[in-house]
This record gives sequence, C-alpha cells and structure tokens, in this order.
Amino acid sequence: MKRIVITTMTALAFFASAVAQNQNERVPAKGFAMFSAEDTFHPYEFTRHAIGDNDIQIEILYAGICHSDLHAAWDEQQEQGLHAAYPMIPGHEIAGRVAKVGKNVTKFKVGDLAGVGCMVNACGHCSSCEMHKEQFCEKGTTFTYNSRDIYHDGEMAMGGYSDNIVVSENFAIKIPANADLKRVAPLLCAGVTTWSPIHFSNVKKGDKVAVAGYGGLGHMAVQYLVDLGADVTVFDRTEEKRADAARMGATRYVNVNNPEEMKGLRNTFDFIISTIPANYEPIQYVAMLKMGGEMAIVGLPDKSTLNIANMAFLSQRKVYGSLIGGIKETQEMLDYSVAHDIYPEVEIIKADASEIDKAWRNVADGKVKFRYVIDMSTIK
Amino acid sequence: MKRIVITTMTALAFFASAVAQNQNERVPAKGFAMFSAEDTFHPYEFTRHAIGDNDIQIEILYAGICHSDLHAAWDEQQEQGLHAAYPMIPGHEIAGRVAKVGKNVTKFKVGDLAGVGCMVNACGHCSSCEMHKEQFCEKGTTFTYNSRDIYHDGEMAMGGYSDNIVVSENFAIKIPANADLKRVAPLLCAGVTTWSPIHFSNVKKGDKVAVAGYGGLGHMAVQYLVDLGADVTVFDRTEEKRADAARMGATRYVNVNNPEEMKGLRNTFDFIISTIPANYEPIQYVAMLKMGGEMAIVGLPDKSTLNIANMAFLSQRKVYGSLIGGIKETQEMLDYSVAHDIYPEVEIIKADASEIDKAWRNVADGKVKFRYVIDMSTIK
Repeated sequence: MKRIVITTMTALAFFASAVAQNQNERVPAKGFAMFSAEDTFHPYEFTRHAIGDNDIQIEILYAGICHSDLHAAWDEQQEQGLHAAYPMIPGHEIAGRVAKVGKNVTKFKVGDLAGVGCMVNACGHCSSCEMHKEQFCEKGTTFTYNSRDIYHDGEMAMGGYSDNIVVSENFAIKIPANADLKRVAPLLCAGVTTWSPIHFSNVKKGDKVAVAGYGGLGHMAVQYLVDLGADVTVFDRTEEKRADAARMGATRYVNVNNPEEMKGLRNTFDFIISTIPANYEPIQYVAMLKMGGEMAIVGLPDKSTLNIANMAFLSQRKVYGSLIGGIKETQEMLDYSVAHDIYPEVEIIKADASEIDKAWRNVADGKVKFRYVIDMSTIK
Repeated sequence: MKRIVITTMTALAFFASAVAQNQNERVPAKGFAMFSAEDTFHPYEFTRHAIGDNDIQIEILYAGICHSDLHAAWDEQQEQGLHAAYPMIPGHEIAGRVAKVGKNVTKFKVGDLAGVGCMVNACGHCSSCEMHKEQFCEKGTTFTYNSRDIYHDGEMAMGGYSDNIVVSENFAIKIPANADLKRVAPLLCAGVTTWSPIHFSNVKKGDKVAVAGYGGLGHMAVQYLVDLGADVTVFDRTEEKRADAARMGATRYVNVNNPEEMKGLRNTFDFIISTIPANYEPIQYVAMLKMGGEMAIVGLPDKSTLNIANMAFLSQRKVYGSLIGGIKETQEMLDYSVAHDIYPEVEIIKADASEIDKAWRNVADGKVKFRYVIDMSTIK
C-alpha cells in the first residue's frame, strides 16, 4: 500500500511537471539556418513554442530537401507575394519519433513514428479547413517555415533542418511502424504534391500521361502514375536519367534539349503534371494535351507565364495549379505509399552545414537522384 | 410532249451553263477593305473563287462586326503567330440568302437562308474534323478572312463585309426560315464562342457563374447562362451597362473600376467566362473561382498572361481557352437560339466605309450595345 501511494505520488508529480513544462517552457532546439538570401548554412540554436495540451514533440530523424526550400531561402517567390524572413530554417519533409505528448493528445503516444509536411497549423473551422484543405485556411495557414505562426503569438515557424519540432497532433501524420523511415520524409511534400492532382484529375488505367521535370516530385509522380496503370512519358533536360525512367516503368523519355525528341507530341496526352521548378514555356506542354486534357502545375518557377490568347488557340486544354494537399489527403497518400512500397529514391547526407550547402547546389543544378534526405540524428 | 421536250432542253441548257460557270468563272464581289494596319476602310472590288460542285454562293444581307476583326486588321495577334495580310476584308458573322448552288449541293436550295461563321474550309478527314472541331483541322483550317485558302490555290480568303461569299455547303449554316435574320449574324461567332465553353464546362441550373466583359460576346453568354438557370454576375468597366445586365437577368453587376465592388469575391464562382478583349490581369478572376471551378478564356487580348506559380497558390482552379466552335456545334447553337428566342442586341449600320470606321472606334472604346451589324443590302 505504501509503495502504491508513492508510485501514485510520483506519477502525480511527474504529471504536474509535464503540465508545467507544456504550458510554460519553450523547447530548446538546434538546426541549420540561413541569415540572408545570399548566405550559406550555419548551425543555429533556438527555441520552439512550448508543448501545448494538443501538441506533440517529435525528435526529427530525417528531413528531406525540397526544391521549394531553395526558392524560399533564396527569396525567389516575390512574384507570389512571399518574402523571406531570416534567420530561416527550411525543411517541410520531416520524419521522426514522438518524444513528448501534451495531455489531450490521443492520436500519438511517446515512441510512435510521426511526420510533418508543409504546414503546422490552421484554424480548423473555415470552409477550406472543413473541406480538408488546410493549406488554404481562410484565417491563415501556418506553414512549416518562413511563415508567421498566428497561433503562437506570431513567431516565425522554423522548419525541419533541426533536431526536433513541436506541432499540434492534428497536423502530424501517423507513419506506419513498418515504413522505411529514411525514405518517408519526402512523401510528406513531394509525395502528396504529386498524388493530389493525379487523383483530382481522375487519371486512370491506360491514360496517356506525362511528367515534366523528373526530380524529387517528378519521380514520385512517375511511380504513382505507373502504379495506376497509365502510359507514362517523362520529360527532363539530361540524358543521365533516361535509364531511371525506364526502370521506374515509364514507356518513353524525352530529353527536352533534343529538338528531334520534342517533335510530333501535339495532342498526345490526357494528363500532364509539370514539376519543373525553373522558368520555362508552359504553353509547349499545353499544346501536347489532347482536347479535354488537363495539365497540373506543381513546380513553382517564379516567372513562367501562359499567354491566355495562346491558350484560346489551344482550345479546351485545362491548366490548373495544385499546392501540396490537406492533412487527410497526406495521411491517405502515406498509408497507400507504404502499403504499395512506393517511396522516393533518396541520398542520405549528414546533418552538417557544408553537406547541406553542397546538396543545395546539386538540387539547383538538377543533379540529384532523386531526393536528398538529411540524417538529423547525426547533428552535433 | 413538245412542251416537255423544250422545257427539258431549257433546263439542260441552264444546267450546262451553271456547270460552266461553276467550274471556270470567278465570282465578282465588292466589299470594304483595309490596306494596312493604320488604314481606314475603302470600297473594294474583287473576285471570289468559282462556285464548285459542293459550293453555294450566298448573297450577304447582314455582317456582324466582331472585336476580333479589329485585332486582325490592326495586326494585334503577332504574339499568337497571326500576321495581317492586306488588302483585308474582315467579317466572319455572315447571314444571307442562297443565290446559287453547285451541282452536288443537297443541304441548300436557291432562296434558303444561310450563314457563315469563322471558317470556310477544312480537310474533313483528320481526327479534329472527325471530332467536329474543324477549327483545329490538322491539315489546316481556312478561316473566313485573313487566312490562306489551301483548298483554292492558296488565295487569301475575304470576309463578310462584302456583298456575297462562295463557300462549301459543309461550312454553311442553315438558318431557320423563322429566324430574325438581322440578329442572326453575330450568333455565328459571338453565339457559338460563348455557347461552346458553357456546355464544355457543364454549367447547370443554380451554378454561380460570372461573365467578365459585357460586350458582343458577353451579352450572349449572359443570355445563355440565364436561360440555363445559373446565377449570373456581370463584370464590366462602365456604369452604362448596369441596367442592361439586370434586364437580361443577371443578379449582380460589378463595375471593375470600383474597388469596393471588387471586394469579397474570392471563392465565389463555379464558372467564369472571360470575353475581355483588352489586356488585363486574369489571375484576379481565377481567384474568384471556387476550388474545382473553371474559367474559360474566349476574349483574345494579345499580352495578358497568367503566372503559373500564382495559379498553384490558387490550387485546383482550372483555366482553359476556347476558340469558336465546330460546324455541328454552331448549327446546334443556332437552332437552339432561334427556338429559344435568344439573339444579340444589335445596332444596324449602313454598308458605308465611314460608317464602319465609326463603328470600329466605338467597339474599340467599348461603347457599343452590343453588336454592330452592317446591312450589306445597302452597299452601293
């Protein structure tokens, strides 16, 4: 009896302590930050908001490097009204293990695998949130980095190139225990960003489809489209990836720098997804759609434009943009991907500033096959 | 018996004469031409190709003035790869009466009402023609003017601001005998150009829709959409048309020059048709679409563009262009319009060069309600 009382008191004391920390104490963290658009990475110590009752703290084990990290940190999205704030810790492809849970958390327990994608909060009540499109929250989505967190006193959110993150359980993704964790992180952006429009456009078995831009996003699109039974053509600017495309099940590879290969493709495709991150002429791909075909834009070049009169002369080819996916869709994508063994091909790098710098240069040059993932457990 | 023989011989002689003319004689015509992009109109006599076995000659009674006539004659479509050739006789909204028929013609007889829209020939055999989309003929569509007629030795086609036209019966539209002929001509471009995307996007009763640009095309779109039972908002740049929009059944009119009226319209519409012919920022209308909504571009400004990254941030709003409609669809539109008493509102002008010049200035300034039609019977 005495022993039980002590245990109970210990538990109560622990609980009281946990609550105190949850409500009051900011969480120490360290990561890699840039301090200007021209900067390289530096180790950086900071704090995250305290663990609220509905929050979990995730020990980050892997963080993917997305091309949009470069756009954001290099301040290349001013045309879209997005401005870089520094110091910036990028990273919105996060996989790890739950280290702490707030008292109201029901979806996770300590030790579970958990991920975070492109966003960490939204109001939950507006029409967009009710449609499970939290990325368009009408009150304001808090993205994973370079985003003002209106739900935490307006502090700037810091991303996944760091050792931990604190996030509402509603914005954390459950990662199945049998997942290949080091390859999970990029699914949370590159995966859902390509998955979402493929399903929005109802791509089906036998459709003739194309993936323009065969990098981190593109190679996920190819895998999902091949899995659906579509006939996939890949467009990229290098010869080095031709064999990879065949290996992943594409039936054709077009080197866009070879004018001969670019011929004879008008009116060919039911669906095109463009993941191209650099500026290009999208009208040439619109012209490759069949009448009634659809082209989804998921790459974010800052200055690529479509002349609308030229679109009229290519009548009835629909073009739309697509921005990541909601939390529900992200969970569906992840469960499906793990069940179907669909993963990115990744190159693991150490959590080291100069390693990240080098990886970024390769991403900018299109030299990565296909996604860099930082092993955050190696951070010093 | 004798009488019958004579009659038969007379008929044979007439037939022989008709065949001779059909095969050999070019058809004299007169109209109004411009000789450069800076020119005004001048009376102009010319000849049309001979009446082939499958052709009809139409005495033109009415010719509509379309904003794209101005774009073409003023050489404003170079961005779209279209260059003006002079002398140019514009006009692709043509209504009249059949004056002669080739020997194989079955669809028309002399005296029938007939119309011609934006095109006068195509191959008839390619996949676009088989889909009844002759405006995208893979061998080459001959448009009604400023277009090389590859089916007639490459001569330049001359449009409807003239007293007659010779055209294949396959590219002539049957006009019901009970139609209000003076108001029919604009249906053949403005009608089908708006009808086609409204049906391609499956607009239905109760949809919230918008018409941007309330001119010749726009006021046809409003009528078709109101007829379908949609809830119609009209956007234009003047106050003068506000009452007209209400009279035609629109529920709201937005003066785009009034910032207050432009507020609060994000995520509002299932469908938008933009008929705006002048340069503008189409992204502001894309932002007014609901997620999953569609915007059809039918106006042809030369330099209006969409930044594709901005489209991504307005996810899942589809934008497409639409160029006129095929012959089958044009006939369906015309039959429906006459049966439902849907017509343009027209201002009839005399067939006189200075009258046409004046009308063009008003079209350019957006001062027409809603379509000028030239009474070609008044040509001197």
